[in-house]
Amino acid sequence: MFFSFDGVDGSGKSTQIALFADWLREEGYPVEVCRDPGSTSLGEAVRKILLDRSQLVIGPTSEMLLYMAARAQMVDEIIEPALAAGKVVVADRYLLANVVYQGHAGGVAVGEIWKVGAVATRGRMPDLTFLLDLPDDAAQARLHRELDRMESRGSDFRRRLRAGYHAEAMRDVNRILVLDASQSIEAVQEQIRHAAAQRLPGIGRGGAAS
Amino acid sequence: MFFSFDGVDGSGKSTQIALFADWLREEGYPVEVCRDPGSTSLGEAVRKILLDRSQLVIGPTSEMLLYMAARAQMVDEIIEPALAAGKVVVADRYLLANVVYQGHAGGVAVGEIWKVGAVATRGRMPDLTFLLDLPDDAAQARLHRELDRMESRGSDFRRRLRAGYHAEAMRDVNRILVLDASQSIEAVQEQIRHAAAQRLPGIGRGGAAS
Repeated sequence: MFFSFDGVDGSGKSTQIALFADWLREEGYPVEVCRDPGSTSLGEAVRKILLDRSQLVIGPTSEMLLYMAARAQMVDEIIEPALAAGKVVVADRYLLANVVYQGHAGGVAVGEIWKVGAVATRGRMPDLTFLLDLPDDAAQARLHRELDRMESRGSDFRRRLRAGYHAEAMRDVNRILVLDASQSIEAVQEQIRHAAAQRLPGIGRGGAAS
Repeated sequence: MFFSFDGVDGSGKSTQIALFADWLREEGYPVEVCRDPGSTSLGEAVRKILLDRSQLVIGPTSEMLLYMAARAQMVDEIIEPALAAGKVVVADRYLLANVVYQGHAGGVAVGEIWKVGAVATRGRMPDLTFLLDLPDDAAQARLHRELDRMESRGSDFRRRLRAGYHAEAMRDVNRILVLDASQSIEAVQEQIRHAAAQRLPGIGRGGAAS
């Protein structure tokens, strides 16, 4: 089973992923948590390039392709072996983020990103994506750590992100679950566990959620 | 006008490119020489990753996507502006190298590389590619500089490379010119200039090819 988390920065992904992974482990599932881009030596090298915008000029198509390169390696090195070993994979972002950031919000043709994504992932897509949805002002307020370039873009960009996430969620309602991330951490986590429990065998018999 | 040079390491690309660019300048053409990957700050950063295999594990799909990211940036930053300014662009390798190295020789589906390549280049392809073809033993003998990992692969890999280059040249005879690189430097250069002169306006009226 492969779950991913997505949403803008400040939507609480990291917190929810940590709580979710803890819960899965308590329920007896072996868990592999990864972040995209990252988690492999190549992924971290690519991540460093993507965050080092002061030194490098990176257009939206290149940016998208760099994410794809990191993702292809993560699929090979982390996700496929983990799934083959029977683990539950939990990814902090995945292809959807490319589609929304460089596509809907960045101007690269969305259809082309999906096409390249199919090559990069070799068709490995999350069984379920938790989309943490947050109104723009709430995201701004939560976002207190130092801003890298990806996070410092204007509110217009953020609005395009949100519209893009919503458009993709509408296109794939069975695999993208939109959660109102302005609720309490506990309430959001409860909904995540509930949705996951429906897909995981053997959960709900014991004292699962909360 | 956009020319590219391709072929295995040791086939004499650098020498031929330098002579060709000098000749174009003597003929009065403004010339932009670039190398793929490279030529942009991002391209050089990606090139460094690709050569740093001792530290990084990079699968063939990731490798292909990294080249694509560098190429997309080179198209944006170097090739399109140069062509728009009326320059003759001369590239040391381009998409064809991906198709042959990661595709024919590396096992990634060739059709997928072309598909991703169309996105990365936004359809910008060389008007003519000079393919410097060299039998395997000749390439080995010429190859005296320190080997990076890409060059240290076995003779079986090199045979697949050559077969891949030939297959692609057969598919696109109008845009890929195969040259026997085991000839003298002067003889190869003469053939390059002759083919280029047929495509460039105003050459051949003066004292063009040596």
